[in-house]
Amino acid sequence: MTTATRADRRAAICEAVFELLGEVGYDRMTMDAVAARARASKATIYRGWPSKPELVMEAIEHRFGGSMEPPDTGSLRGDLLAQLGAVCAAAEGADGAVFTGLLTAATHNAELAECLFRCAYSTKHSMYEAMLRRAELRGEVAPGTTAELLHEVLHAMVTSRRMWQNGPLDRAFVERLIDGVLIPMLTRS
Amino acid sequence: MTTATRADRRAAICEAVFELLGEVGYDRMTMDAVAARARASKATIYRGWPSKPELVMEAIEHRFGGSMEPPDTGSLRGDLLAQLGAVCAAAEGADGAVFTGLLTAATHNAELAECLFRCAYSTKHSMYEAMLRRAELRGEVAPGTTAELLHEVLHAMVTSRRMWQNGPLDRAFVERLIDGVLIPMLTRS
Repeated sequence: MTTATRADRRAAICEAVFELLGEVGYDRMTMDAVAARARASKATIYRGWPSKPELVMEAIEHRFGGSMEPPDTGSLRGDLLAQLGAVCAAAEGADGAVFTGLLTAATHNAELAECLFRCAYSTKHSMYEAMLRRAELRGEVAPGTTAELLHEVLHAMVTSRRMWQNGPLDRAFVERLIDGVLIPMLTRS
Repeated sequence: MTTATRADRRAAICEAVFELLGEVGYDRMTMDAVAARARASKATIYRGWPSKPELVMEAIEHRFGGSMEPPDTGSLRGDLLAQLGAVCAAAEGADGAVFTGLLTAATHNAELAECLFRCAYSTKHSMYEAMLRRAELRGEVAPGTTAELLHEVLHAMVTSRRMWQNGPLDRAFVERLIDGVLIPMLTRS
């Protein structure tokens, strides 16, 4: 098998995992269903990924892993609007439902929890740091303001609203969170 | 049956539901197991609560429903330390595991989600409002500062950390959240 074919096969398997996660959820997804959906032999699946958690973690890496370029709009508020808008759009879309199911499965599986946290959270951290370094150069935040709390609050608010379904992830929510919480906490004296 | 006996029976059934939710989770909990645990007849259970969601909602009301007295320490920071400390202690305890499981089940059940949100969230709102009205009288926050965002951020941060298991719900977390997020957002000029 050529390298290109192997990568295509891998991508097809990861896509099949995500489709099935969205359709039936983690607990009811089977390795056999993944093989059927990806038009791969069961032997291929089991050879590459001996267990369901390993297969799902590979799919998470494939879809969510890697860093992201931060938006660069020229102001901290503009960058936050763009970034939080993108996070909300993703949470409202198909990936959001998959993600909620994974978060749920992860509460009973420490390895899956660690993978999910690393791919969907830790790898995005440098983007928030880059955003704040630019804000610092523009004099919008104090020198040395770190992104830890910004990242955690932003993520917690979107995840929580998605889980509880206690309100829409719309523009009003985004602006309220930015103007009522994020900018005050980043610019406190 | 006397009123007292009926209330005792009801409390025993609700306790059995919570024990089983903690042990096996929502999906695997059966009405029959609840009857056995509460030493009640299956007829009693099915007569009072025809379905599992109804039984679980009754238990949620029993355990989490009702308002709470806000702490009154003499300062906004002291009140927040006491309240957030209590929320974290509950989340770290046995109820926290039950709660995470329910939140998970609620993502597939709108009626359960609504009940959970009402009992564990909405009924607690007046407590945060009372805390801010006292802070307003002491001149710690601007007149008319509302509790909506405070309540949502506090809840989201604790729930998210509990779900992701991405850090302890300890005193350092509580202080960082209060001094880095909650007080800056409540006292912004």
